[in-house]
Amino acid sequence: MTEAEFIVALRGLPLHAGARGLLDDAAVVGGLVMTTDTLVEGVHFVDHDPPADVAWKLVAVSLSDLAAKGAVPEGVLLNLPLSHDGWDAAFLTGLAEVTAAFAVPLIGGDTVSLPAGAPRVLSCTAIGRDAAAPSRTGAQAGDALWVTGVIGDAGAGLGIAIGAPGPATLLAAYRRPRPRLAEGRALAPHVHAMSDVSDGLLIDAARMAAASGLAVTIDIATIPLSRAYRDQAGAERRGRLAAATSGDDYELLFAAPPEWQPPVPATRIGAFADGRGVTLVDGGESVALPARLGWEHAPNT
Amino acid sequence: MTEAEFIVALRGLPLHAGARGLLDDAAVVGGLVMTTDTLVEGVHFVDHDPPADVAWKLVAVSLSDLAAKGAVPEGVLLNLPLSHDGWDAAFLTGLAEVTAAFAVPLIGGDTVSLPAGAPRVLSCTAIGRDAAAPSRTGAQAGDALWVTGVIGDAGAGLGIAIGAPGPATLLAAYRRPRPRLAEGRALAPHVHAMSDVSDGLLIDAARMAAASGLAVTIDIATIPLSRAYRDQAGAERRGRLAAATSGDDYELLFAAPPEWQPPVPATRIGAFADGRGVTLVDGGESVALPARLGWEHAPNT
Repeated sequence: MTEAEFIVALRGLPLHAGARGLLDDAAVVGGLVMTTDTLVEGVHFVDHDPPADVAWKLVAVSLSDLAAKGAVPEGVLLNLPLSHDGWDAAFLTGLAEVTAAFAVPLIGGDTVSLPAGAPRVLSCTAIGRDAAAPSRTGAQAGDALWVTGVIGDAGAGLGIAIGAPGPATLLAAYRRPRPRLAEGRALAPHVHAMSDVSDGLLIDAARMAAASGLAVTIDIATIPLSRAYRDQAGAERRGRLAAATSGDDYELLFAAPPEWQPPVPATRIGAFADGRGVTLVDGGESVALPARLGWEHAPNT
Repeated sequence: MTEAEFIVALRGLPLHAGARGLLDDAAVVGGLVMTTDTLVEGVHFVDHDPPADVAWKLVAVSLSDLAAKGAVPEGVLLNLPLSHDGWDAAFLTGLAEVTAAFAVPLIGGDTVSLPAGAPRVLSCTAIGRDAAAPSRTGAQAGDALWVTGVIGDAGAGLGIAIGAPGPATLLAAYRRPRPRLAEGRALAPHVHAMSDVSDGLLIDAARMAAASGLAVTIDIATIPLSRAYRDQAGAERRGRLAAATSGDDYELLFAAPPEWQPPVPATRIGAFADGRGVTLVDGGESVALPARLGWEHAPNT
């Protein structure tokens, strides 16, 4: 099955009232926000990524889902594989760094051995509190679509991680994402819908539109790019589309009334309307959708 | 690192107040009990175990940790790998069965692809409510040690799963454990300490004693064995020690004052005293500790 088909099947199971129909990246149970993410070696990270960076990313990507709900991190549960001493020690260093950086304590976890040579699989379940918890489904026709920060740096960083030349800032964006916790806190009580950008700006915007029962138009000319990204990949249409489909940005994507101005730095990149699907424009010009809007998990056949 | 060394290192990180120093199998956060477990193909289950049974076991083992805290299951978050269509469909059938059997809804999860040929790794984080939540650390000198149900069936069932002849009841004990949720609810408000038996009766009893700062003596003559187990492995000392070290029982192990009688069927198998370590007796006779008290994860070297 594809990931989408599998999730449809999961929706046929009894769902918790706080599960939001599995349409959101986080659930709300007993006043707490809960979200879980898995990283797989060779899929979500490169086998020579430094173990400390893997630890950082593991925790940071779950905190990013808390950020999208406007939650304060309460703590994390970790499912970790034992490895060899050098890897484990470096991983623990990264874990100390990321938990200190975002003031998130350890709640619990499980540690397992893997068969020799198996790719590492790691999970993080993050718990947050005190969240306005806007869902992904609440966008309204006429809302503007906004995104924090810049898009594409992590995707360019992945290229560098697997061998392309390029600057350390882009590599760091891929390996050490910074969840937008403060921005999420400021935005969550006011926006109609919010998610993070994990699989790609276009696919995450498409999911917000679909979950809200709306169409969305995105002007790729407005997609915010860093100077480093422009130098690396170019700011022409091709570079912009690459940025918008590469994922791992961990910026916040949100829908808000057209006249509303966000209280944190963000860029207006599109608008929601009645209908379905994603439409791209580049300034005034219509642009065909790329074949791939972002990252979707394929089955292991 | 060994699992024990790794957990010691994790204890050096900032811990949540509800994490219980990572000495327990569950944490208590905002009035909710939280526990997480990972199953690895080739480690926790056999690659030809039916996918529906893997799903059952994944959820059941986490619910067993809730049972040991006396919690009512609130729901589960699942970290699942996509596989081929046949495996996925059968897995989803088992998931429907176990969630219905124990009335536990789905809160959320994450679905990922694995590199081709990689062993499946699955995690379940279970959330429970309304728990007295006795810890593993509260046993007192003079307390009796009790266990629910019978011990050893699942270990014998593993032998059958990997090729030994034997009855379906033992195989089912291995593949479809039944968390002692009702027993846990009845016991939790009254006991001094409780955990489930997951890695082996002796090692789990040793952990309870160590976490409580006490010694424990276990009379292996009293370890409860099923008729099927006796027929399969024998009830002599060797069979009893095999039962007490094989794990996967998911019975409840608890410490309570010596005069107290549990409100559910259980067997008194030992006692706590000042001191350290585990002592085995067989009726009146002293018995040497086996080299292996149960299952401990080794690093993947």
